[in-house]
Amino acid sequence: MSDKQSADPLRPLQQSFPRSKKVEVGEFAVPMREIALTNGESLRVYDTTGPRGEDPSASDPEQGLPARRQEWIDRRMARGDDNHSQMHYARRGEITEEMRFVALRENVDAEFVRSEIAAGRAILPANRRHPESEPMIIGRNFLVKVNANIGNSAVSSGIAEEVEKLHWALRWGADTVMDLSTGKDIHKTREYILRNSPVPIGTVPIYQALEKVDGEAEKLNIDLFLQTLEEQAEQGVDYFTIHAGVLLRYVPLTAERTTGIVSRGGSIMAKWCLAHHEENFLYTHFDEICKLMKRYDVSFSLGDGLRPGCIADANDAAQFGELRTLGELTQRAWEHDVQVMIEGPGHVPMHKIRENVTEQMKLCQEAPFYTLGPLTTDIAPGYDHITSAIGAAMIGSFGTAMLCYVTPKEHLGLPDREDVKQGMIAYKIAAHAADLAKGHPGAQDRDDALSRARFEFRWEDQFNLAMDPETARSYHDATLPQDGAKTAHFCSMCGPKFCSMKITEDVRAYARENGYGTEEAVQQGLEEKAEEFRSAGQEIYRAQR
Amino acid sequence: MSDKQSADPLRPLQQSFPRSKKVEVGEFAVPMREIALTNGESLRVYDTTGPRGEDPSASDPEQGLPARRQEWIDRRMARGDDNHSQMHYARRGEITEEMRFVALRENVDAEFVRSEIAAGRAILPANRRHPESEPMIIGRNFLVKVNANIGNSAVSSGIAEEVEKLHWALRWGADTVMDLSTGKDIHKTREYILRNSPVPIGTVPIYQALEKVDGEAEKLNIDLFLQTLEEQAEQGVDYFTIHAGVLLRYVPLTAERTTGIVSRGGSIMAKWCLAHHEENFLYTHFDEICKLMKRYDVSFSLGDGLRPGCIADANDAAQFGELRTLGELTQRAWEHDVQVMIEGPGHVPMHKIRENVTEQMKLCQEAPFYTLGPLTTDIAPGYDHITSAIGAAMIGSFGTAMLCYVTPKEHLGLPDREDVKQGMIAYKIAAHAADLAKGHPGAQDRDDALSRARFEFRWEDQFNLAMDPETARSYHDATLPQDGAKTAHFCSMCGPKFCSMKITEDVRAYARENGYGTEEAVQQGLEEKAEEFRSAGQEIYRAQR
Repeated sequence: MSDKQSADPLRPLQQSFPRSKKVEVGEFAVPMREIALTNGESLRVYDTTGPRGEDPSASDPEQGLPARRQEWIDRRMARGDDNHSQMHYARRGEITEEMRFVALRENVDAEFVRSEIAAGRAILPANRRHPESEPMIIGRNFLVKVNANIGNSAVSSGIAEEVEKLHWALRWGADTVMDLSTGKDIHKTREYILRNSPVPIGTVPIYQALEKVDGEAEKLNIDLFLQTLEEQAEQGVDYFTIHAGVLLRYVPLTAERTTGIVSRGGSIMAKWCLAHHEENFLYTHFDEICKLMKRYDVSFSLGDGLRPGCIADANDAAQFGELRTLGELTQRAWEHDVQVMIEGPGHVPMHKIRENVTEQMKLCQEAPFYTLGPLTTDIAPGYDHITSAIGAAMIGSFGTAMLCYVTPKEHLGLPDREDVKQGMIAYKIAAHAADLAKGHPGAQDRDDALSRARFEFRWEDQFNLAMDPETARSYHDATLPQDGAKTAHFCSMCGPKFCSMKITEDVRAYARENGYGTEEAVQQGLEEKAEEFRSAGQEIYRAQR
Repeated sequence: MSDKQSADPLRPLQQSFPRSKKVEVGEFAVPMREIALTNGESLRVYDTTGPRGEDPSASDPEQGLPARRQEWIDRRMARGDDNHSQMHYARRGEITEEMRFVALRENVDAEFVRSEIAAGRAILPANRRHPESEPMIIGRNFLVKVNANIGNSAVSSGIAEEVEKLHWALRWGADTVMDLSTGKDIHKTREYILRNSPVPIGTVPIYQALEKVDGEAEKLNIDLFLQTLEEQAEQGVDYFTIHAGVLLRYVPLTAERTTGIVSRGGSIMAKWCLAHHEENFLYTHFDEICKLMKRYDVSFSLGDGLRPGCIADANDAAQFGELRTLGELTQRAWEHDVQVMIEGPGHVPMHKIRENVTEQMKLCQEAPFYTLGPLTTDIAPGYDHITSAIGAAMIGSFGTAMLCYVTPKEHLGLPDREDVKQGMIAYKIAAHAADLAKGHPGAQDRDDALSRARFEFRWEDQFNLAMDPETARSYHDATLPQDGAKTAHFCSMCGPKFCSMKITEDVRAYARENGYGTEEAVQQGLEEKAEEFRSAGQEIYRAQR
């Protein structure tokens, strides 16, 4: 993020979310945000801000967060476990504390959580060296998650600032955060991020490995890479993006592409493969990597080094060739009980999105899919949070488990604080729209609460239930700033005479007074439906998705 | 729009779109915007800004636009036509000048344009009293169009200001504009809008009719309404939203809804029906309305007075009951050769969007669909241009012909100039994403041109090909303001060592030098595809949309 904006301290949570407070629920003190409404009701929403979320600026990054998982981890260490993967426990039939926490958080059964992890359909990223994390789950039978990237600047920024970036992303709902730092002090910065993060942290270790060889890709080797993994695993990184699917034979497939290889990790590995004319060392040494990762429970995020960088390159032979290899690597990781998710999309037009999910599920045996966007057109730089929110909502509704956000600065520059917020909100909208489409239990509760508030002219509740109460309120006040307008039974769009909601109230009252029974009306509606069914030839299944 | 921002005059087109100029193509001088690239190439894009679009502030609203269709219209008047509908001509086998213009504009055959209009699958809104308009077409086999609403404030604003709002919406690509004015001077304002508009203008005549009875819905009647239609048709309005499908028996179906009736026109007619306990007079007098409209060639936009105002109310009996009636009315209008489009959606979750299009096509015999959004969640007031761009892109890809934009101020207040721009851009993204998904010929040309510019580090071209060059440029400059950075072969996101595009160039060069033949590589890719096909059991159709 830019230095200018980051210089301002973060305001307390309640200033962003008035009448909200953090509450802890159940035996594991699962955190939620509770929104108090003016009619005496309240609504609880999923919350990722962590124990310092209410006032991050008041806390000292030196202190770090409480190690809430430490006791659970210590017990497993004491009994001599050598594979710490949640998948390993799940496959042995053990329901861990982390799984129970997640079950409460997602409002599902703990045994279901275990079985999804055992099947590889979900991952619970939880490095035993990151005891500060609040367990969360990534899988298509759970809420759709959103990742935010931070630290992707080579320009040095202070450590307090990096921690602040983390908290800012969490405030807007980031479920995981990737630290993509490439500057100096990379180790120390990551240490502060981990010690202050209640969410899983992901990295792309090849970036640090490349720093160690002064940016010369050809000088990379497996020993250096394993050292880097060990260093980061020991710090507590929860998942590694590893581009082990960029095979030598796929690289020339990109030569005729409109935009070639656009993944940084992918291009580094492609360059290495060509320079040595050897197979990708991440692929040939994959089992060694697995052995290291299971000692910590670091999850794989198998990188899509050959993702398409434009509409013209979508779903091509290079992309799907790599995906097939990622499916093979998934099996190899699972032989070690190492958790796996698969990275995907990039730029994909709408009609080619579903094929990505269908192929990924088939080739990678339903391992969770984690996609960037996809951007559904190339022509709107400056608005790629929107071009990609369209694709993200669709791919989420098809079963993608986690969406990697895109900010308005994508392709153009480094995101500042406002860009991070805009990217997060666009992606929380996409994730929520997908949850509704998937029929996730309870997902519609917040929509219903907000719509009731809207219909009943409870303006304050409408603002406070919104994703961004401050913005909603300021937009309202731009037209009708008076306090009275927030209790008025009409609004600025139509004025009192034209207010359709006001008229609806009249309609209801009139219908009541004049004895138009709702039951009778509904009955008539049903009879029409029945007639429609008869006239349509009584087909049970009609042409629709 | 708010008064404050509208006070600034509009800057010339070239300041919004550098290196763009307007050109006229073919025998009918079809307007396009031509973007000159730094590599000597150029790209032409669809343009709706009209003859004064290059510098609207320099032109006098008193003058109005040249009446480019007058000669064509005069010829038809002279021969004594009494039905001026383009559908009427199309059904008689006549290809009008308007159809030829549209064919050039959309790059299709004129006979195809005629046949689509004759079938009712497309409309060409072109009131003979609006000779200033540049013909355009709305139908699912053409480019997806976007409508912008203006004038929806009861607060009086100057006439020059209204014309400026129009030009501002056109600059960002509005294909039609609805004048929703409800204030005083409504007639005069509309006159200025029409005389200065190169795009079809739509209205909701019931708003003006209601003004005439001092806002008391029960006092409305058909005579007053027909007078209002005649007044507006005579001025040149190209399409009327008419809520003739809000039948008495549907009204009580809304009583149990979470948000009742949210359409203004719908609630006015519902109130009238209940007050009189009579059938909607727009329905009972529909043939009289048709007779009036065909004399001018005003198209119907059959209003969805019962559209859902929240996720909970989507696709309910009231909504689909009204849609069935709109289908019936479509047939009645077509008996008069009056052109028809059908209004739809509102708030609809993603998994219920397709059903809207399927039902609409069936019930309304493929008459063009014109939808508001839909918004795919209720929880993000302040960001409803995004919640609805998701739904709009989807419904467009399913065959909706025109999308009514939603601005960030939806539900909260009156859009200002910036909101109009944000709404327009979100919707042009949605429409374009849908065009790509539908495989519209040539739709991808701009994506490809921009992606090639991106890959070749032609920053200026990347900006100038974008939907909003100024914003793209300013985002780039926020991180790397130096002029040199716009020719640099890397960018701020990764810096020179990490630039994946730079590495791809190296990969290409290396592959070339070392004799990795592209053909050979592609061949290998194809062989893998073939193997995949064999191992998948040689099914021709696989599980995908």
